[in-house]
Amino acid sequence: MKTKALGPIPAGYDALDGELAIGGRTASDLVASARSTPLFVYSRTHLDRRMAELRAALPKRVGINYAVKANPHPDVIAHMEPLVDGFDIASSGELAMVQAQRIDPTRVSFAGPGKRDEELEAAISAGVTLNCESEGEAARSLHIGQRIGKTPRIAIRVNPDFELKGSGMKMGGGAKPFGVDAERVPALARSIINEGADWRGLHIFTGSQALSAEAISETQSNVLKLAEKLSGDIGEPLPKLNMGGGFGIPYFPGDEPLDLGAVGSALERMVDNLPDSFDDTQLCVELGRYLVGEAGVYLCRVIDKKVSHGTTYLVTDGGLHHQLAASGNFGTVVRRNYPVAIASNYSGEAQDVVNVVGCLCTPLDRLADAALLPAADVGDIVAVFCAGAYGATASPSAFLGHGAATELLV
Amino acid sequence: MKTKALGPIPAGYDALDGELAIGGRTASDLVASARSTPLFVYSRTHLDRRMAELRAALPKRVGINYAVKANPHPDVIAHMEPLVDGFDIASSGELAMVQAQRIDPTRVSFAGPGKRDEELEAAISAGVTLNCESEGEAARSLHIGQRIGKTPRIAIRVNPDFELKGSGMKMGGGAKPFGVDAERVPALARSIINEGADWRGLHIFTGSQALSAEAISETQSNVLKLAEKLSGDIGEPLPKLNMGGGFGIPYFPGDEPLDLGAVGSALERMVDNLPDSFDDTQLCVELGRYLVGEAGVYLCRVIDKKVSHGTTYLVTDGGLHHQLAASGNFGTVVRRNYPVAIASNYSGEAQDVVNVVGCLCTPLDRLADAALLPAADVGDIVAVFCAGAYGATASPSAFLGHGAATELLV
Repeated sequence: MKTKALGPIPAGYDALDGELAIGGRTASDLVASARSTPLFVYSRTHLDRRMAELRAALPKRVGINYAVKANPHPDVIAHMEPLVDGFDIASSGELAMVQAQRIDPTRVSFAGPGKRDEELEAAISAGVTLNCESEGEAARSLHIGQRIGKTPRIAIRVNPDFELKGSGMKMGGGAKPFGVDAERVPALARSIINEGADWRGLHIFTGSQALSAEAISETQSNVLKLAEKLSGDIGEPLPKLNMGGGFGIPYFPGDEPLDLGAVGSALERMVDNLPDSFDDTQLCVELGRYLVGEAGVYLCRVIDKKVSHGTTYLVTDGGLHHQLAASGNFGTVVRRNYPVAIASNYSGEAQDVVNVVGCLCTPLDRLADAALLPAADVGDIVAVFCAGAYGATASPSAFLGHGAATELLV
Repeated sequence: MKTKALGPIPAGYDALDGELAIGGRTASDLVASARSTPLFVYSRTHLDRRMAELRAALPKRVGINYAVKANPHPDVIAHMEPLVDGFDIASSGELAMVQAQRIDPTRVSFAGPGKRDEELEAAISAGVTLNCESEGEAARSLHIGQRIGKTPRIAIRVNPDFELKGSGMKMGGGAKPFGVDAERVPALARSIINEGADWRGLHIFTGSQALSAEAISETQSNVLKLAEKLSGDIGEPLPKLNMGGGFGIPYFPGDEPLDLGAVGSALERMVDNLPDSFDDTQLCVELGRYLVGEAGVYLCRVIDKKVSHGTTYLVTDGGLHHQLAASGNFGTVVRRNYPVAIASNYSGEAQDVVNVVGCLCTPLDRLADAALLPAADVGDIVAVFCAGAYGATASPSAFLGHGAATELLV
């Protein structure tokens, strides 16, 4: 069988006693303390290091928000609380999650194209900033604010006329369900201000999962130019500008890590050249995947090793019910291998070409195709990396009744 | 904007007072009694009619099993209990679900490539038939049976050398993680019989979601020939033969319903020509999607109606967190529209070209692209059909914290 390459294992995952170690503990030790597989392990060390890299690279003036949707595990949110400047939520469910961690609501903003009245009410009542997605949503928010006697904090999410080039998901450029088309923003902003809302500025999100520093810098430059123009047209300075995110992580063979230094120094120059009208504008980037993606590893156990027509299968107790994106079934056209390893034989020499599959009774349930891996048999532990973002909650955990995975922050 | 066709609405969904009616009740009535959207509605009438069609078309001798994974809602399982002959489960979680409905374990069989020891023990202990997927799993099952003092009921799942042509998912033909390659089945069966297990025959599953009667009949013919050969090689009659399923339902523009009459009459001829050694063999087909898929409708509410660069969006409170397959993100290469309608204006004349999207903050969350639909505005109810199978449980319901949908059998 022809070998297919695996994605690159993120930095900082070394061997201990021949096994994969996470947070200084071996995979078998982690599985033993969780008392079950499959298991998501999130590493504090990795979370801290990524934040330190970002603080070192980005201009001091630019805050860092955590997009909770990437990983809403309570322990992860609690760990991020002292590290980041703000939290971005996408539903009243996520509002409850940040409230459960006693996060100051003035640090929280809420974006999402289909906010229900009860969600708007919960957010306004808590004092969370609404990133308003349409004229209709603005009217509903103002009405709800009046009804409950609370001034809503409102920013406008802008649908810009440009996109983040090379991004995995484009969220700007042309017709989009997100935000308000740029040319309609000044009139809406004036109306929001006139109606007495607490004006919070703009949110300009253009795409996600880009690995090119040049593309990110170009987009950030476009975001700042657009914000400057819109602020002028509105006739008021922006209290805050959420510049969006888009910082990607390597998942697939050939992917190279983002050059964060290049992004930071380009952004430094842009920020230094901002006009005086931005002197009091809070700037931030909004990151999810980039903060937590590489900090998570999914561990599952080999339940069966079998051969069919010359092909060897490692059948695990994990699968797409926990790792939909890794199986290649979530917004992917061509399936490619994530970084995968034999966690229980991490120092072993790669010698066998195997297909790693999940336990679900569907041919979609693939974790690695034709992977060259060290020897593994029933009982061995398989690691799927880049499992910290859009893993547990972005997968159909009820599918086929196997249940959710354990999640552990170490 | 150029219109994109919608998939065909299944038969039996008529208008009542201008609205979509399900089980004799209007969409707004159903939503009112559920007190929330989004909502899955499953129709008893549709379930009953589909079973009646199958009983009329298929030979009397061929039993019908329900594959619980298609829709494990407790009320659906309970409704199917008196209608079908057996239940196929894919995990110990699904075992617990059929046990909760007090279904006789001798009517249940368990297939799945990664059965854990504790799952095998639960199934053997309950008296469920194991569709054994490998020599290793057979050895573990026999060992567990000895340990707990209970004779395991074992069938062998066969990986056949042929596939179901035109099927949405191929589960036979070449190397596969499912079942035992056909040429190794006789030796394994002899060994299972010699070890004293309760020998239950064969399970031959070749694919799913085929709309061609000819392809299904050809496959059924191949299944019967293979079963005859294997039975001869084993030297014992088969107590049971699960012939698999594969009966598809129309989802997309241009899809035509399966010609069930043609499948039934072809199968009648095949069954009539079976050799005497099959006289005592219980025959069954295993169907999931075909039994429940068209009986379910997903209802969600329009939260916002907005225009971006000339494109109109109906933003609903539903989305891919409940209807992943309809969004085009589950095992799909090219996104096509499912059947979608304005449930609250079902009799209205199609007049507007709109994009129907979900509430999730991701461009993946699309329910219908460029659909020509009757007038709809905020508060209207959107119906997505073919939501009875692989909907609620095959979607990432925790994604973005919006929560699970209500499910209602009417």
